Amino acid sequence: MPSASASRKSQEKPREIMDAAEDYAKERYGISSMIQSQEKPDRVLVRVRDLTIQKADEVVWVRARVHTSRAKGKQCFLVLRQQQFNVQALVAVGDHASKQMVKFAANINKESIVDVEGVVRKVNQKIGSCTQQDVELHVQKLDDAVRPEAEGEEEGRATVNQDTRLDNRVIDLRTSTSQAVFRLQSGICHLFRETLINKGFVEIQTPKIISAASEGGANVFTVSYFKNNAYLAQSPQLYKQMCICADFEKVFSIGPVFRAEDSNTHRHLTEFVGLDIEMAFNYHYHEVMEEIADTMVQIFKGLQERFQTEIQTVNKQFPCEPFKFLEPTLRLEYCEALAMLREAGVEMGDEDDLSTPNEKLLGHLVKEKYDTDFYILDKYPLAVRPFYTMPDPRNPKQSNSYDMFMRGEEILSGAQRIHDPQLLTERALHHGIDLEKIKAYIDSFRFGAPPHAGGGIGLERVTMLFLGLHNVRQTSMFPRDPKRLTP
Amino acid sequence: MPSASASRKSQEKPREIMDAAEDYAKERYGISSMIQSQEKPDRVLVRVRDLTIQKADEVVWVRARVHTSRAKGKQCFLVLRQQQFNVQALVAVGDHASKQMVKFAANINKESIVDVEGVVRKVNQKIGSCTQQDVELHVQKLDDAVRPEAEGEEEGRATVNQDTRLDNRVIDLRTSTSQAVFRLQSGICHLFRETLINKGFVEIQTPKIISAASEGGANVFTVSYFKNNAYLAQSPQLYKQMCICADFEKVFSIGPVFRAEDSNTHRHLTEFVGLDIEMAFNYHYHEVMEEIADTMVQIFKGLQERFQTEIQTVNKQFPCEPFKFLEPTLRLEYCEALAMLREAGVEMGDEDDLSTPNEKLLGHLVKEKYDTDFYILDKYPLAVRPFYTMPDPRNPKQSNSYDMFMRGEEILSGAQRIHDPQLLTERALHHGIDLEKIKAYIDSFRFGAPPHAGGGIGLERVTMLFLGLHNVRQTSMFPRDPKRLTP
Repeated sequence: MPSASASRKSQEKPREIMDAAEDYAKERYGISSMIQSQEKPDRVLVRVRDLTIQKADEVVWVRARVHTSRAKGKQCFLVLRQQQFNVQALVAVGDHASKQMVKFAANINKESIVDVEGVVRKVNQKIGSCTQQDVELHVQKLDDAVRPEAEGEEEGRATVNQDTRLDNRVIDLRTSTSQAVFRLQSGICHLFRETLINKGFVEIQTPKIISAASEGGANVFTVSYFKNNAYLAQSPQLYKQMCICADFEKVFSIGPVFRAEDSNTHRHLTEFVGLDIEMAFNYHYHEVMEEIADTMVQIFKGLQERFQTEIQTVNKQFPCEPFKFLEPTLRLEYCEALAMLREAGVEMGDEDDLSTPNEKLLGHLVKEKYDTDFYILDKYPLAVRPFYTMPDPRNPKQSNSYDMFMRGEEILSGAQRIHDPQLLTERALHHGIDLEKIKAYIDSFRFGAPPHAGGGIGLERVTMLFLGLHNVRQTSMFPRDPKRLTP
Repeated sequence: MPSASASRKSQEKPREIMDAAEDYAKERYGISSMIQSQEKPDRVLVRVRDLTIQKADEVVWVRARVHTSRAKGKQCFLVLRQQQFNVQALVAVGDHASKQMVKFAANINKESIVDVEGVVRKVNQKIGSCTQQDVELHVQKLDDAVRPEAEGEEEGRATVNQDTRLDNRVIDLRTSTSQAVFRLQSGICHLFRETLINKGFVEIQTPKIISAASEGGANVFTVSYFKNNAYLAQSPQLYKQMCICADFEKVFSIGPVFRAEDSNTHRHLTEFVGLDIEMAFNYHYHEVMEEIADTMVQIFKGLQERFQTEIQTVNKQFPCEPFKFLEPTLRLEYCEALAMLREAGVEMGDEDDLSTPNEKLLGHLVKEKYDTDFYILDKYPLAVRPFYTMPDPRNPKQSNSYDMFMRGEEILSGAQRIHDPQLLTERALHHGIDLEKIKAYIDSFRFGAPPHAGGGIGLERVTMLFLGLHNVRQTSMFPRDPKRLTP
C-alpha cells in the first residue's frame, strides 16, 4: 500500500502484519491514511449495485462498508454494503492473499469503510443473503479506509427498541429500510413540486419566526428575539394567503411547521415538514380541491413507477398491501360518511367531529366499499372548523372544507378561506377570538383578495401511510417530540 | 348581472345605477356577490398574457385587477393587470355601455378585481404603457368582483421608501418587479433541485429546533421547549454531515436558517433560506467543489434560458448588466487573490480574512481580468475558517476550503470537513471550544465517516446578485432583521 507506510494510524496495525518477513502479500492490504485531499488518483470506484454478471471477470475497485465478516480456515467472507445494496466478497489464501491478509480481513470492524480491489466472479448458486445474488468479489487488495472507533450494528431486521434506534440514529439510518424510506421521502417532495410547477404554481418561502401567535396562541413555541418575544409559525397559512392577495394565484411551499402540543402519539411531532398549497379559483373551491387531489395521485403514481425498489425494500421488513387509489379521487360528503358509520353502529351527532378510531373505521368501510386507500371527505360541519373557513352558501351548518385520508388517517386539511374582511371579522367574533390578535391577518384582505382555497399536508404522515408504517418517527430523520430533542 | 340583485353588497351601489329607468345597460355591470362556491359556471377566463392579435375579434372573459382608470367624456380607459401583464380596456357609450356604465367603470377603485367581458380589438398604434401592446379590450360587461376597502397603490417605478414598501408588503408584492423577482427565485430553487437530483443527490429534511447551540452558542435564538430551553439551528451542517455518516453519500436541503446577529446591513437577515449541499468524495474535495460550481452554472443557464421575461421586467426598474460566468468555473487560490489585491494597493497579511470592501474590489479585478461575475476562491487560510475545516496536507497554514462569489459578494462558504474524531477534537481544542458543547457533533464521526465536503448558499443573496439588486430585503418575501418581524 503506498499510503500505509505514511499512515498516521500505522501504529495501530496488528502485530502479525508488522512481521513482514514471511508475508508475500504485505503490499496488498493495510490501513490507509486519512483522506485529506492529497491526491487526485485516476482510480474509478464501481457502485455495488452495478456488480452484476455483465461485469464478470473484470477487475474493479469498490468502496463500501463491512456489513459482516466470517472467517473459516483459509478463507474470509465479507459482506460489503453500500446504501441498500450489498455483495459478498471472498479473501482466500492463494496468489493474491496470504494467511496474514485473511486474518487482517477477518479482524476488520463491522461498519468500517474499506477500499477493495477484486475480480467479479459469477457464482453457481445464487447468494440469497445479498442484493447482488449472481456474483461475488474475489479480493486482491484490501484497504481499511475509515475505521469506526465504536463498532456499530447494522440492525437489519432485528427487533430493536425504537428509542435505541433513535438515540443512535446515524447507524439506524444506514439500514436498508431507512435508506429506502428516506429516498422515497425525497421522491415525495420531488413529485409534489414537479406536479405543481407543471400546473403553473410558484414556490414561496415563508418566515418561520413571526410576531404574533395566530389562532389565539395555543400550542405555540416562544422565541427570544433580541429584546422581545416572537413565535414559531404553526403553519405558513397566513403567508400563503398573503401571496394570494399579492396576486401570485397559485403557490406552494415546503418547510418546517412547529406545534408546541404535548401529544405523545404515533402520529404527532412537535416539528414536522408541511407541504402547503394555496390557490385562487374562478368560481368554486372544488377547482382547488381537485388540483390537490390530482397532485396526490401524481405523487402515488410517481412513487409506484420510480420507487419500486425502495417500496420492496421496506416491505421486506414491514409487509404491507400496495397502496390503492382511484382516478379521479373518490369524494364523499361528511353526511355520507356519517351514514356509513351509523350503519356500522357508531353513534354520532351531525355536527360532531370524527374521532381517530372513527376515522380508522371509516377508512376500512371506504376500502371495503370502494377499494381505495385514498379519498376526500368534503363539507365538514362548520362548527368543527377554524373561524376562517368559508360557510357553505346552501347549508349554514356545513362549510366549504375538506380533509383527505390515506389508509384511514388524515393527511391533509383544507378549505375555501373567507376572503371578505367583514365576514372574517364576524366569524372570528363568533369563535370568541380576540380581534386585536388577528388584526394583521384580517387587514391583509382589505386591499382586495380573490376567492381562494388550499390545504396543508404532513410529509412524514404521507411517507408513513404510503408505506404502511406505524410510527411517524420512522419517517422523520431526526424526530422531535415533547420528550426528544436529540440527536 | 344575475348575481347583482342577490348581492349582499347591493346596498353599496351608486345611487345613479339604482335609477334604472333610463339605463339600457343596467344588466351589463354591477357589483357581484362574494364567491362562496355557490355555482360552477362554464365560463372560461382568458389570461391577460394571452390577449394577442391571435385573439382579435374574439369575445373573452378576463378577471384582473384595475391598475389605473381614466374617464374622458363618453369613454373610460382601464388598465387591467394580472401579475406581470397588463392590457388596456375601453368602456365607451354605445350599444353595450350606457353613460351610467361608463361612470360606474370610472368609479371602480384601483386594485379592485373585476370580471370583464369584451371583444379583443387590434389597435393601430402600439400601446406603449402595457405589456399587451397590439390589442385592447372593448368592454361589454363589467363586474366589480372584489373591492378593496382601502385603495392600494401599485407603485410601479415610483420612488417609495423601502420600509413603507415592506410595511405594505401585500401591495408591494403585486408590482411587476416583485412578481418577476419571486418567480425567478422559485426558479432558482427548482433548478438547484433539478440539477442535484439528476446528479443522484437525495433531498433531506433537517430539524430546526436543536438541543445545543453548535459552534459555541453565539448568535443563536433561544426557544422555550416545554419546560426546557432549545435553540434554532444556525445551519443544517451537523445534520447533513450525519446523513453522510449514515451513507446517504450526496444530500441537499432547502430550508430556513436562523442567525441572531444584530447586523443591519444590505445583505444580512436574521432568517434566510439556505440551499445546502453535502457530499462524500473519493479522493479529493475538488470533486465536491466542482459539483457545487457546476450546480451554480446550471442555475445561471436555466435562469437565462427560462426566465428572460422576468429578468427583463426587473431590469426595467433596476437596470443591470447580464450575469456572466465561465465554464468550467474560474478557480483562484487565496494567495493569487492576495497578489491581485496587493498589486491594486491593498495591504493585507497572508492569513488575514477578506473585508467586504476588499471582496468587492477583488470582484472588480476578477471581472476585468477574466470577464466573469462568478468564481471560486480556494485554499483559505486555516486561521480564518471554523474548527471543523480540514487543514491542507501540504501547507499547514492553508485549508481545504473555498468561498464562491457573485458580482463580488460571497454567496457560498464551503470546505472539506474533518471526518476523523481525533483530529476534530484537536482542532476544537486549538480553537478554545468547550468539548462538552460539541460532544454530539464529534461523536457522530465515531462510527466511521467517509471523507466529505459541502457548502451552504444563501438563496436571497443569489437572487439579489444574479439580478444586480442592492438589498437582500428585495429578494425575501417577508424579510426578518433585528428591527423587522412583520408582516
